[in-house]
This record gives sequence, C-alpha cells and structure tokens, in this order.
Amino acid sequence: MTDYTTSTSRSGVETDETSELIASNIVEGTKVYNRNEHIGQVYNFMVNKRTGQVEYAVMSFGGFLGIGESYYPLPWKALTYDTSLGGYMIDIDKRKLEEAPSYREGETFDRVYGKRINDHYGVPYGGV
Amino acid sequence: MTDYTTSTSRSGVETDETSELIASNIVEGTKVYNRNEHIGQVYNFMVNKRTGQVEYAVMSFGGFLGIGESYYPLPWKALTYDTSLGGYMIDIDKRKLEEAPSYREGETFDRVYGKRINDHYGVPYGGV
Repeated sequence: MTDYTTSTSRSGVETDETSELIASNIVEGTKVYNRNEHIGQVYNFMVNKRTGQVEYAVMSFGGFLGIGESYYPLPWKALTYDTSLGGYMIDIDKRKLEEAPSYREGETFDRVYGKRINDHYGVPYGGV
Repeated sequence: MTDYTTSTSRSGVETDETSELIASNIVEGTKVYNRNEHIGQVYNFMVNKRTGQVEYAVMSFGGFLGIGESYYPLPWKALTYDTSLGGYMIDIDKRKLEEAPSYREGETFDRVYGKRINDHYGVPYGGV
C-alpha cells in the first residue's frame, strides 16, 4: 500500500493525494511543463458538472501575488500527467504556446471560445 | 449566449462557472441532496490525475468552522447533477447513507477503501 500514502490537509482530512487521485482543492500549483521545460502551474481545473470530466486545466504564470498573472486554459486532451515530473506536460511549439488564447477580463467561456482553444492546440473539441 | 454567462473570481479570471463547466476552486459548498433533502455540501472532488475524471465528490456536513465536520466520499457514478436544484443528487435509503463509510484521520485511500465505498453505494468500482 506504499503507493497510496496520503497527505493530511489543514482540516485533517486525509487523501488529498494518492498515487492516482488528487483533491481538487490542492491541484493549484501543480507544475506544467512544455516538453521538459517548466512553463507555469495549474490555477484550477474546469470540470464538466454533469460528466465529472476535467475539460481544461487553467495554467497561470508570471505576475506577483496574483497581480499581472496570465491565465491559459489548456485542453485536457492536450495534457499528459508525467509521474516522474509530478506534473502535467504539453507538447507544443514554443511560438504556438506564446500565441495561445489567454483569459481576459470579460471573456465569456462559451462554445465558440472553447472551440477556439481546442483548435489552437489541435485537439478535438468535445463540447464545453 | 445567455446560457454561458460567467462569474468573476477574486483574481478577475472569468469562467469560474459556465452552464456546463465549474472551476475546481469553487466546487466547495455545492449542495448535495438525497432525493430532495439537502444533506450536505461538496468539500472537494477527488480527480484521477491521468484521466481527469472525477472519481469521488467528498461531502461534508455538520460541525462548525470546520471543527467536528464529517466527510463522506460519494462515488461520482452515484451522483447526478440536478440543474434545477443547482447541486448533486444521490438516491439512497437514509439508513444506508447513515452507515456510509466516512473519512477518519489516518485512513488510507487505497483500492480496498475505494472498493468499499463503491460497494456501499452499489456502483461498480472503476479502479481508484
């Protein structure tokens, strides 16, 4: 059972993280890599309320204390969990990444926006 | 696009919630109902790191300011999102619910524990 040791959260509830599961309240900060370069960290997951499938990992990077940070929704289908790195990996040309759609204030995360993101990363759009 | 209006989080990042997606950092507090009775709220989601599938919604109830609260992992397969209630619904005999496995300090969320939970709710165990 050594694979399933758990950490303890502030509230004393165990199982924040097992080898296969991660608690949604501690995903923030999980590292994101492009190939082997650390490019940012998970800000949150966008979860389909009905199916329970994570559709996007929103990556944040830059800024200081949350000011000036940029946010990039990465389609789940474009990510791989790398157990050795302990984080998510995307495999994309650096320029393509720099041109990726980022959140802006007032942005509406509708189907058009979702499709635009998935198209950018070249993965099928599953319907947000 | 009225179906996809969004809320704004403290950081100014939009899309905390659309009609189909919910941000992992705001799932806490989503109401849980047994049939039509409000029985608790979501504490967190336990997400499969590789597949991105939510496997359990951990429900909390009782206590005060986090002290004395009880935590119950509910298999995703046993839950339905009810748009009219704006929360998750389980359909289970009240006595069965009272006898449900709850987290205890020192609990290890291994396969044995996962299987025990799913068995209790009568849903197939997909492998934690």
